[in-house]
Amino acid sequence: MVLEFVWIGSTRNAQWRALERDYLQRINRYLPTSLAAVRELKKTDSRQIDAQLKRETASLNRRFKKEDYVICLAGQGKQLSSTDFARFLDELQIMGKRRACFVVGGHLGLSPEFQKRADFRLSLGKMTYPHEMARVVLLEQIFRGICLCKGIPYHY
Amino acid sequence: MVLEFVWIGSTRNAQWRALERDYLQRINRYLPTSLAAVRELKKTDSRQIDAQLKRETASLNRRFKKEDYVICLAGQGKQLSSTDFARFLDELQIMGKRRACFVVGGHLGLSPEFQKRADFRLSLGKMTYPHEMARVVLLEQIFRGICLCKGIPYHY
Repeated sequence: MVLEFVWIGSTRNAQWRALERDYLQRINRYLPTSLAAVRELKKTDSRQIDAQLKRETASLNRRFKKEDYVICLAGQGKQLSSTDFARFLDELQIMGKRRACFVVGGHLGLSPEFQKRADFRLSLGKMTYPHEMARVVLLEQIFRGICLCKGIPYHY
Repeated sequence: MVLEFVWIGSTRNAQWRALERDYLQRINRYLPTSLAAVRELKKTDSRQIDAQLKRETASLNRRFKKEDYVICLAGQGKQLSSTDFARFLDELQIMGKRRACFVVGGHLGLSPEFQKRADFRLSLGKMTYPHEMARVVLLEQIFRGICLCKGIPYHY
């Protein structure tokens, strides 16, 4: 199974970017990964938010094939414990999914349409995280999940 | 109100440390902060875990006065939304608390005795985070909370 990560807008903060890279490398030892950043549209013009979200959604939809399993981060999504999340990732592999795609929005979040299209809406908890932090938390949980499933001791 | 942060063991990873410093500086613009790391005991000898936790607890207890409001991160604690957490911080100030102390454990977590002594047990969600990441998430939420309460636009 290939893990594809799609961010809306790239991660700009140097520390978050370094942590992102670090977890991606660690995950990559066990599963092939790819990371792509969809162009984030300007957030300055509030009148255009709907139009921007629509364009971002179109650009996301073009990336994914029908057979992809798409997971997006969503405040109203389902919370899983780290163990349940590990099991969830394992089951995707058992089901023979070729690609699991993880999508994290940018400043505007993700459109309701895209959230509906996603196969799973994952919530990291009740708190609202900045999107760059949410990306790293997600990657860390995926790496942790792989370690749990494979019985590999997890070194922070 | 002074915010005192107490970690068990210092934050070693350079990126997490930099993010920690960054959020502390940002918080410090609005509330005075201090950060202390209680010596973390070796985690190599599993037979000594109980004794180690006991010593860490004793060392924590020595730091806090009866009038301090102690908040610790705990997996079984209460989850709050970012808005509710902001309100919670604001109420501590309104109640006239002089010091709010935030405690995050190390590899061994925090002893049940210490968790019981704490005035509030905060959970960041169902997922288990590495403690260095949990510290940054906590600091980010405190900074976000201050911005929410003061109506300051929050720049990631």
